[in-house]
Amino acid sequence: MEKSCKILADIVNSMTDPNVVSFGGGAPAKEALPVDIVREICNDVLTKEGRGLEALQYGNARGVKDLREAIVDVLLKPKGLDTTADHLVITAGGIEAVYLVCAMLLNPGDVILVESPSFFHCVMSFEMFEAKCIACETDENGLVMEDVEAKIKEYHPKMIYTIPTFQNPTGITMSEERRKRLAEIASAYDVMVLEDDPYRDIRFTGEDLKPIKAFDKTGNVILANSLSKIFSPGARLGYVVADEQFIQKLCDAKTGINTHTNVMAQILAAEFFKRGYYPEHQKKISDLYRERCKLMLDCIDKYFPEGTVHTMPEGGLYTWVTLPEGYNTTEILQRSMETCKIIFVAGETCFVEGNGKGSRCMRLNFASAQPETILSGIKKLGELICSMAK
Amino acid sequence: MEKSCKILADIVNSMTDPNVVSFGGGAPAKEALPVDIVREICNDVLTKEGRGLEALQYGNARGVKDLREAIVDVLLKPKGLDTTADHLVITAGGIEAVYLVCAMLLNPGDVILVESPSFFHCVMSFEMFEAKCIACETDENGLVMEDVEAKIKEYHPKMIYTIPTFQNPTGITMSEERRKRLAEIASAYDVMVLEDDPYRDIRFTGEDLKPIKAFDKTGNVILANSLSKIFSPGARLGYVVADEQFIQKLCDAKTGINTHTNVMAQILAAEFFKRGYYPEHQKKISDLYRERCKLMLDCIDKYFPEGTVHTMPEGGLYTWVTLPEGYNTTEILQRSMETCKIIFVAGETCFVEGNGKGSRCMRLNFASAQPETILSGIKKLGELICSMAK
Repeated sequence: MEKSCKILADIVNSMTDPNVVSFGGGAPAKEALPVDIVREICNDVLTKEGRGLEALQYGNARGVKDLREAIVDVLLKPKGLDTTADHLVITAGGIEAVYLVCAMLLNPGDVILVESPSFFHCVMSFEMFEAKCIACETDENGLVMEDVEAKIKEYHPKMIYTIPTFQNPTGITMSEERRKRLAEIASAYDVMVLEDDPYRDIRFTGEDLKPIKAFDKTGNVILANSLSKIFSPGARLGYVVADEQFIQKLCDAKTGINTHTNVMAQILAAEFFKRGYYPEHQKKISDLYRERCKLMLDCIDKYFPEGTVHTMPEGGLYTWVTLPEGYNTTEILQRSMETCKIIFVAGETCFVEGNGKGSRCMRLNFASAQPETILSGIKKLGELICSMAK
Repeated sequence: MEKSCKILADIVNSMTDPNVVSFGGGAPAKEALPVDIVREICNDVLTKEGRGLEALQYGNARGVKDLREAIVDVLLKPKGLDTTADHLVITAGGIEAVYLVCAMLLNPGDVILVESPSFFHCVMSFEMFEAKCIACETDENGLVMEDVEAKIKEYHPKMIYTIPTFQNPTGITMSEERRKRLAEIASAYDVMVLEDDPYRDIRFTGEDLKPIKAFDKTGNVILANSLSKIFSPGARLGYVVADEQFIQKLCDAKTGINTHTNVMAQILAAEFFKRGYYPEHQKKISDLYRERCKLMLDCIDKYFPEGTVHTMPEGGLYTWVTLPEGYNTTEILQRSMETCKIIFVAGETCFVEGNGKGSRCMRLNFASAQPETILSGIKKLGELICSMAK
């Protein structure tokens, strides 16, 4: 737990340190932050006659109504999830969405099935609730359903945690067939699925897939999501979609933790969606990241050791790199931080199995750095890696 | 726990319901919300060259540096608390400050000494951690130290929770002598004091008193505070002042819960303090609330049953009313909600002792309603109360 805090703190701090080249965090590109739009909206609505008093006064635990409606209308219904604003609560970011769901469901000793590899930040949250994470196999189509079913029978988990689209850390997307099957398995065994889907709208190629929640007929799937990658991480906005009764309990917990989410941020996001800025913004960031993804993959092919393989993400922020035998990414990260100040996520951080699993792997964020930084950074990192063959 | 959630939800919802006259919540007056200043700051700083990119990008768990510095320079040092920005973490409001401290310190079954009466929202947070609250006597100078010491010996508490200035719900202020003594007792018995001090800058009369934390020589006092009453509750900004080591652990917990606090709100507050708006704003809200406090107390004297007593707060948001024998404020609240839609906090809500304690008491917020609403609302409420004598 303390070790994972330290790793996480290093990554988070690296994202805002100008002396560091960070391929480590999950930060969007600065070009993807809608500063001008937000300033315009502030100017419009922050008046006493407009929404200024609403923005600065107390709100309620469930969140600003027209933001909840905008999320349903713009982000959920068009993707095949038929729900309403009453099934939704606004949270202070996607991590808080996951934390609140955990606060509702978990007791010490509960088992959670996670993807192998999975997102270390959420694994840390699970550890805060003294849950035990068990890894399930994944392949190029996401979680392997036979292994999920076997692990359910063996461990009787409370919850299955998955990032189905452009997964963190691998960039891999779960197939539609498996999404349907996972919802069925969750119902059949009465296990909860926590679907974490922050990258889904950043797609470079291929067709949109329905969220797992769209296949849920029994209330066993909870969708936790974030506006960090498609609007602003600094705004700390996320949401949970679940049964109304569950949402009510979640609001009570939210009240106990921090009363409600920042109101101004909610109003700004609501206006952003309602005023129709989103489609163009979504295209802009998808185009930007597609280009940067291609550039980074080309650079990896060129500068990393022969035998290196990487995923080919259809969207999102990350590629997952596996170096050939004889390299250790934890050691490489250590050296890299000391010498060229280039940060990435070492593979071992992403596996709950331990025992050195993932020691040849690394997660790289291709989205946040400028093209020239990707070029020079991956070249430098490649040279460092090549110098560290055993 | 479920009952307290329900009461709290009713109060919170009442604050934003235009059909309700709310003397119930802790909302500031709308005239006290600096809408124009915030709009001006937004316009200035939300540019790509200014702080727009910083505002929308990820921040860090500890909080925006110049806000932490501004809090130290403007809110803490002038009040006699000599500390630095490194001893401070920014939270999403005062409730989250309390929650995070609890997450650090409490284990199920731990005892917390609270004032009798105390703030039900924080008591609810303590219950989330399965702590047991024990009430300590209070008088017109706050917590009675002899009783605190006796209860420490009897219950071996982990923590003492106090709101020393213009207390919630009573409006009473702890004397300087007792503040000093409480810090000494905490050291002597190695008990933590959680000092919650959100109203301290809203003073109508009398001299500023040092925070308890200013008398702390052993790190046994933690100051949790809020900007909700002096800047904006919708912004969800608060902070914790403690030892550096404790602050570091608290940052780790904050990372696990919701990564960090909304960055734009932090920048707006930092600029608000740095640009020197605060002294005039503080005077404005203190003047406004002084006037409303006087009006409400006059109305209570005029319209409430003979024999009613109320506190004479030297600041803050609340007065505490005790009706004569034969009245029950829980029943009066029920009737009031059904008929005239006037909300207040029934006294029983504020006592952890149960057994009907406080059933003749009520907490009234004199700050948030317009003068004409105070006049008509207290008159109507007085008439209702008089009609419900037993």
